Amino acid sequence: MKVRVITTGGTIDKVYFDATSDYEVGEPTVPHVFREAAVAMEYELESLFRKDSLEINEGDRRRIREACERSPEARILITHGTDTMAETAEFLTGIPGKTIVLTGALAPARFRVTDAIFNLGLALGAVQSKGEGVFVAMNGTVFEAGQVRKNREQGRFESADV
Amino acid sequence: MKVRVITTGGTIDKVYFDATSDYEVGEPTVPHVFREAAVAMEYELESLFRKDSLEINEGDRRRIREACERSPEARILITHGTDTMAETAEFLTGIPGKTIVLTGALAPARFRVTDAIFNLGLALGAVQSKGEGVFVAMNGTVFEAGQVRKNREQGRFESADV
Amino acid sequence: MKVRVITTGGTIDKVYFDATSDYEVGEPTVPHVFREAAVAMEYELESLFRKDSLEINEGDRRRIREACERSPEARILITHGTDTMAETAEFLTGIPGKTIVLTGALAPARFRVTDAIFNLGLALGAVQSKGEGVFVAMNGTVFEAGQVRKNREQGRFESADV
Amino acid sequence: MKVRVITTGGTIDKVYFDATSDYEVGEPTVPHVFREAAVAMEYELESLFRKDSLEINEGDRRRIREACERSPEARILITHGTDTMAETAEFLTGIPGKTIVLTGALAPARFRVTDAIFNLGLALGAVQSKGEGVFVAMNGTVFEAGQVRKNREQGRFESADV
Repeated sequence: MKVRVITTGGTIDKVYFDATSDYEVGEPTVPHVFREAAVAMEYELESLFRKDSLEINEGDRRRIREACERSPEARILITHGTDTMAETAEFLTGIPGKTIVLTGALAPARFRVTDAIFNLGLALGAVQSKGEGVFVAMNGTVFEAGQVRKNREQGRFESADV
Repeated sequence: MKVRVITTGGTIDKVYFDATSDYEVGEPTVPHVFREAAVAMEYELESLFRKDSLEINEGDRRRIREACERSPEARILITHGTDTMAETAEFLTGIPGKTIVLTGALAPARFRVTDAIFNLGLALGAVQSKGEGVFVAMNGTVFEAGQVRKNREQGRFESADV
Repeated sequence: MKVRVITTGGTIDKVYFDATSDYEVGEPTVPHVFREAAVAMEYELESLFRKDSLEINEGDRRRIREACERSPEARILITHGTDTMAETAEFLTGIPGKTIVLTGALAPARFRVTDAIFNLGLALGAVQSKGEGVFVAMNGTVFEAGQVRKNREQGRFESADV
Repeated sequence: MKVRVITTGGTIDKVYFDATSDYEVGEPTVPHVFREAAVAMEYELESLFRKDSLEINEGDRRRIREACERSPEARILITHGTDTMAETAEFLTGIPGKTIVLTGALAPARFRVTDAIFNLGLALGAVQSKGEGVFVAMNGTVFEAGQVRKNREQGRFESADV
C-alpha cells in the first residue's frame, strides 16, 4: 500500500519568523512528523499550495479535487486549515475508487503542545482502514464528509447533526 | 461511538525515576496524550497491568482476552510493549463482534522525540474505521494480526511474509 | 536572595490564536518555565506590558527604568523582545546598586525547538553572579550593555565592536 | 571568552534503549542543547567518562580535578549526576585561577519536561559571571561548593546550612 499526502497549508504548517515577528505558512510538516514517528508506510508528498483555509476559494478546491482524481494512489491524506476543512471535504465527495481523509491542527506542529502529530496519526490510520469516501479526522474522531462542522467558539469539530 | 482503551504497560508508559536512576512503567500516558490532542471521542480507560512485554505470560494474555470479551464497547485500543505485541495480537484473534487495535511505542511518550503520540492517533483512527478483527498499528502501518512481526535489529514492525 | 522578574512582551511570550490565525504576545512564560525547571529561587513577577520590541517607545523604556529603580530586589531579570533589547539595555545603565539582565528568545517558548528556556536559565545564572550593571544574556553569552547589538541578518547577538 | 565543558555522565545524558528496555548513559547532550539554544559562545567539549554519580569514586574525582587543573580555559562547566554532585564540587575547591560550575538534571534532557536545558543555561550564565571558585547550579540557584546538599526526599538542592 502507498498513500498520497496532499498539503494545502493551514495552522498545522504555521511557522514563526522572528525577522518579521509574524507567522507564515511554512514547509509541510508531514515529512518531519512521519520521520520522528518512524513511519514505514510508503507515501508520495504533493505540496499543492500554502494557504490559510479562510483564503481557500472555489478554484483552490477544484485544484484539490483534480489532484485527488488524477492520483495514482487510491488512498489520499490531505492536510488543510481547519476553518473550511468541512466545506472542502464536502466538495471532494463522489470521486470513485478513492479514500480521502482530511486533517489539520488547532495548534502548529512546531509547538510543544499540539494536536498536529496525533491528528496525522489519526488520519493515516483512517485512510488505510476506510473504504471509498471522504472523511475528516479531527479531535480523535473520524467524521464522514457532510456530517461534520467546526464549532468555532469551542474550537473543535463535532457532528453536524448534534 | 465509544472506545475502550486497555493499557498493559510497555515502553510507551516508561517514566524515569531519579531516586532509583532507572526507568519503570508508570501511569498510563493515554489520558494525557488524548487531552493534549483535544480528543473528543468518548473512551473508557482500563489499566489492566504494567509490564514490559517480555514479561507478559500466557496468564496475562488470557486476562487481556477476557477483558476484550467482556468489554461492552465493540472497539478496543490496547497499549502494549512492542517485543511481544505481535504474539498478543495473534492470541486475541477470533473474538466475535470486536475490532481490536494494539499499539505501543519504541520511545517513551514522555520523550521529546517519540512515536507514542502519533501511534496512539494511528490506532484510534484504525479502531474506528476497521471491521471485526485484530490489528497492530505501528510504524505508520495498520497490520493484520498474524501477518506482522517486530524486526528487532531494525527496531520496526514489518509484514511477516516479507 | 530574591530576584525580580519584569516581563515586557516579545517573541518569548508569543502564543498562537487559532481564532485569528495569528501570533500574539500572551501570558508571561516565566512561571511555567521556572516550574518545569524546578526553580527554588524566590522571585517576584512584575508583568509591565506586552509589546513587540519594535513597538517599545521612549515612554515604555522610562517605565522599565522606573520599575528597576523602585525594585526592592537588587537583582532584576527582564524579558524583552529581541529587536530593541540592546537599546533598552543601554537605556537602563547607571542605576546604582542594581544588577539587571535582559533576555528574550528568537523562537517562542511554546515551540518544541526554542532558545527561550535556555536563555531564561542563562539570565538567571548571570543575574545572581554579576555585580552592579546591565547585561544582555542571549546566544549563550552574557554581554555588557553598550557592547552588544542584534545582527538581524544572522538572527543573533554579537559584540558591538566586532 | 571560551568555556571548557567536561561531561561525566548522570541523568542529564540518560537515554532509553528499546532493545534492552533499559536506560544507559548516552552521548553528551550538551552539543545538541547548545545548538538548539543558538549558543554562539566558543566551547571545548571533553567527555571524560559516563557514570551514574553514585558510581563515581575517588579516582574518578581525581580525574575530574586533573582535567580542571590542566584546562587551558579558565571557565569550566561540568555536567555530573546529581546524587554526589555536591561531594565532587567540594573535592574541586582550591584550584587557582579557575571558575568551575557543576550542573546536571533531575530528568533526562531527552524528556519533554526536563530541567536539563534550563540548568545548562543557568550554569553557562554563572560560569561566565562568577570569579574564581567552585559552584553548583541547580534548581535555579547558584550555590557555593561546600554550602549545598541534595535533599533526596524532596529531590532538590538546598543550602547546606538550612
